[in-house]
Amino acid sequence: MKLHDFNPAPNGQRVRIFMAEKGIDVPIVEVDLRNWAQFEEPFLSMNPFSVVPVLELDDGTFIGESVAICRYLEDLHPDPSLMGRDSKERAVIQMWDRRMELDGYLPVMHALRNAIPNFEGRVLPGTRNDLPQHPEITQRGKDALLILLARMDDQLANNRFIAGENFSIADITAHQMIRLAERIEVSIPENLTNVARWFAEVDARPSLLD
Amino acid sequence: MKLHDFNPAPNGQRVRIFMAEKGIDVPIVEVDLRNWAQFEEPFLSMNPFSVVPVLELDDGTFIGESVAICRYLEDLHPDPSLMGRDSKERAVIQMWDRRMELDGYLPVMHALRNAIPNFEGRVLPGTRNDLPQHPEITQRGKDALLILLARMDDQLANNRFIAGENFSIADITAHQMIRLAERIEVSIPENLTNVARWFAEVDARPSLLD
Repeated sequence: MKLHDFNPAPNGQRVRIFMAEKGIDVPIVEVDLRNWAQFEEPFLSMNPFSVVPVLELDDGTFIGESVAICRYLEDLHPDPSLMGRDSKERAVIQMWDRRMELDGYLPVMHALRNAIPNFEGRVLPGTRNDLPQHPEITQRGKDALLILLARMDDQLANNRFIAGENFSIADITAHQMIRLAERIEVSIPENLTNVARWFAEVDARPSLLD
Repeated sequence: MKLHDFNPAPNGQRVRIFMAEKGIDVPIVEVDLRNWAQFEEPFLSMNPFSVVPVLELDDGTFIGESVAICRYLEDLHPDPSLMGRDSKERAVIQMWDRRMELDGYLPVMHALRNAIPNFEGRVLPGTRNDLPQHPEITQRGKDALLILLARMDDQLANNRFIAGENFSIADITAHQMIRLAERIEVSIPENLTNVARWFAEVDARPSLLD
């Protein structure tokens, strides 16, 4: 197995943190996104959607999409569990992970791509074209994040982690979301003390210290 | 088990089609979204994120998020398989389903909510507030969809269905995406003959005929 990735890319970081939590060590092949390697061979055939990360299996299958990669790794290395041990646990964790991703992580990612000069000409992941950066999309991402953070605070009032008493992939997604949000100058509002308590605990995990 | 849902909601329809394909019959409790029932008890405690569908398990657990519900139902009723029979198949199907959802279904959903008068005051799912409808978000959703449709056409040149030779949840997501797109006046471009061939086949399935 090999992971094709670009070190600064946030979706790759989600997978790397997931692997670190499980003690999985896989060789990394760096894809130079800054020089458009994702639009050229050999990468383009591995992932015609031109995004990292991609997990290459020993039989030559390529798995893209960070959560699909994590799901595959969870099957191979079930301990420690980060995605649930039975059908119900898996459903609850997936529900929370999707809430973090769809309501926060993705809106923040789009906010960032529409705000930062570096992303001019590539506002949509895996594309290069002349679509303009829209400040309205950045603002919408910030608004969405603040709504989600307030809902997270309610959940974290009664739960140590996002999906309950155990650390899970939902915490990794939410942590990366908050890190990304710093780049569009949104931080955890002061009144959301449960989110702040949770963030401090997650941020201190060895998998995240680098 | 019960499914709390609102018949016209596209995420609920994804779950209903999934259940129809598997021959699963579950009682439906209608949640009247038009009259804001999603923001009131008893629904609010079932899903503080105020969106449908929600699957209520017999032990009182509530599972939100359509894909998490489908994953749970797939575990309970593995045949016919719609999400893969082993780790690798599951990863490939999840990869394709996420490509359809993240690159197409969600951008189209946001496009719609920022365009249609009915969604004024609720541009983000599960919220009501004074965030404005932005035509820039609608346009971005249309652009994203056209990029995805071209990529789908390449995949469907060599595959009967989105994730390969078998019908899967990725086809349900993509079909619903194209149905939603009709409401913002985007249809399959004429040159994408593989997408058109695939859509006609999927659209004729009994699970979709109502």
